[in-house]
Amino acid sequence: MINMNNSTLDKLISTIAKLPGLGPRSARRIVLHLIKSPDALMLPLAEQLTQAAEEIKICEVCGNVDVVSPCNICNDEKRDDSIVCVVETVSDLWALERSNFFKGKYHVLGGTLSALGGRPPESLNFNSLSTRVAKGAIQEVIIATNATLEGQTTGHYIVDLLTPFEVKITRLAYGIPMGGELDYMDEGTLNLALKMRQDF
Amino acid sequence: MINMNNSTLDKLISTIAKLPGLGPRSARRIVLHLIKSPDALMLPLAEQLTQAAEEIKICEVCGNVDVVSPCNICNDEKRDDSIVCVVETVSDLWALERSNFFKGKYHVLGGTLSALGGRPPESLNFNSLSTRVAKGAIQEVIIATNATLEGQTTGHYIVDLLTPFEVKITRLAYGIPMGGELDYMDEGTLNLALKMRQDF
Ligand SMILES: [Zn+2]
Ligand SMILES: [Zn+2]
Repeated sequence: MINMNNSTLDKLISTIAKLPGLGPRSARRIVLHLIKSPDALMLPLAEQLTQAAEEIKICEVCGNVDVVSPCNICNDEKRDDSIVCVVETVSDLWALERSNFFKGKYHVLGGTLSALGGRPPESLNFNSLSTRVAKGAIQEVIIATNATLEGQTTGHYIVDLLTPFEVKITRLAYGIPMGGELDYMDEGTLNLALKMRQDF
Repeated sequence: MINMNNSTLDKLISTIAKLPGLGPRSARRIVLHLIKSPDALMLPLAEQLTQAAEEIKICEVCGNVDVVSPCNICNDEKRDDSIVCVVETVSDLWALERSNFFKGKYHVLGGTLSALGGRPPESLNFNSLSTRVAKGAIQEVIIATNATLEGQTTGHYIVDLLTPFEVKITRLAYGIPMGGELDYMDEGTLNLALKMRQDF
């Protein structure tokens, strides 16, 4: 029993407790905070969640999450169409956007290949990547998968995938420590890794 | 900029980032988790928040939070009406209920007096406590304020407040370490502290 046979609050607490990084204690703390101001805190959060759930779309071009598809990055004419940065997840895309250095477009794979072959390539957005590259306007693909075994396996797979096309393939510089994940890097490291990117 | 000019998600992330114990990173992580399943995760959470915001009431008798007032604890005829446990917050009430030992009723003060006199007694639920005790059916009041300076100051205030009435006043046994807060105690310690309660 998390709470006291109060099914509305119990249900809410157990839903919140299942969110990543949270648990029963932090969920109770959050709910106790919210119930202090049902109108000023709880309902606005509910409305923002509802609105987000209704509005969010996966970009049909790059796999980013946005309220429009194609997403605002794909639609942004001030960004360089000829260079595409391939990332594992939307979280990594957000990390790069926060570093505010890269002004090209993105491609979100949706994960990595398993180094031992557990996850099939069909489960990731490789087809849409080669379709984009096949159109001929992209001159450089920056592989920005994480510096993990899976990220590198996935990087090599992309190199093979794009060999038929006349496109320059680079990767983020090894300024990123081995085993590190993009989402945990500071902006300076991300900027340096982009600037020092190397031929794959 | 937390996100990328996506105002719906930015707003949601910044709302979640302000919840106790969270911040921009954990908020982003939660939102990225939720947007994977708008229908299965995001909307149900929104609905549970809306329902809770609409249903929750502060118990007019004891100050507990529930969907009915008087609350389910106050309404529970199997619980002992003659013994009332006074706690600082709903969080402490929940902690005692989880320990599943106490079968009397509660009174939630809504905080503590400041040891230096910063918070006036009028801001806490003392009046409703003396009104309950004045009715004559309560035989024992257990003071279960935290073992902090403020909690003890508040306890002494309650002893003075209830002096005019013929009621036994006890406090939780000093099994609770000094400076400790109820919400952080294990159930064994809470049970022991209740069982070994002493005259105030
Ligand atoms: Zn896009
Ligand atoms: Zn009550």
